[in-house]
Amino acid sequence: LHDLLLDELKDLYSAENQLTKALPKMAKAAASEELRTAFEDHLKETENQVNRLDRIFKELEASGKGKKCQAMAGLIEEGKEIIDEDAEDSVRDAALIAAAQKVEHYEIAGYGSARAHAELLGLDEAVKLLQETLDEEIGADTKLNGIAKEINVEAESPA
Amino acid sequence: LHDLLLDELKDLYSAENQLTKALPKMAKAAASEELRTAFEDHLKETENQVNRLDRIFKELEASGKGKKCQAMAGLIEEGKEIIDEDAEDSVRDAALIAAAQKVEHYEIAGYGSARAHAELLGLDEAVKLLQETLDEEIGADTKLNGIAKEINVEAESPA
Repeated sequence: LHDLLLDELKDLYSAENQLTKALPKMAKAAASEELRTAFEDHLKETENQVNRLDRIFKELEASGKGKKCQAMAGLIEEGKEIIDEDAEDSVRDAALIAAAQKVEHYEIAGYGSARAHAELLGLDEAVKLLQETLDEEIGADTKLNGIAKEINVEAESPA
Repeated sequence: LHDLLLDELKDLYSAENQLTKALPKMAKAAASEELRTAFEDHLKETENQVNRLDRIFKELEASGKGKKCQAMAGLIEEGKEIIDEDAEDSVRDAALIAAAQKVEHYEIAGYGSARAHAELLGLDEAVKLLQETLDEEIGADTKLNGIAKEINVEAESPA
């Protein structure tokens, strides 16, 4: 179980690091200022989430390196396709939100499992840090739901 | 927005079709009978979800083909790595559940966005069908949470 947890943490570490590179591009592509700000805010959260993982690896005397999260690579590839596509601003924003929510849900599932496994291993500090990140990811998803409602109304009838 | 919805539906169609091929392998790799049955049950649900998407494409006079969901390909690749890894039965089961929950969350996010966009376009029949699938995906995730609790206790102290 300890090895499984380490694998899961490495996967999340790779996912977050890939995301820190993708979020600035998504922010740049967003037409809505609210959405751009949400992506920029989430970039800061993501950098902090990488730091939390660094602390956990230190506690476990392990390295976060050596694994590439293929799923996040696929999710980011989808995001790139959206950025490159020729679409109305509000429609592209709606698509960017949908892509970002897939990313959030990937992380919610990943941190949920990792936290459950850390709990079973009695790693209290890791559980606390993973829970903090999990709460942030759920918060980011909820925030995107709110922005989606406004963007989608625009996308329905672009000016 | 109509084009975006079609893109989202094609992505889900590809995702579900990839999943119908992966679930039998996950079921075969599961040591716990409860987990194996859960995967087999979800395979039947998934086949029905493909049928729902077929009905929606028919209603929209469109084809579901022509797009490969890269994210699901990545998620399934991760599942394969777990199946091939040399691990204790209960640990492998815990990892299979974690992988399956990532798949479920991907679909929850995807169907959530597609349903919201279909709603804006006034596609009542599509909304109804997408909601049915969304409810099933949330149900599958909840069921896996329950199985995870039992499996994880075993994984903590393998016999």
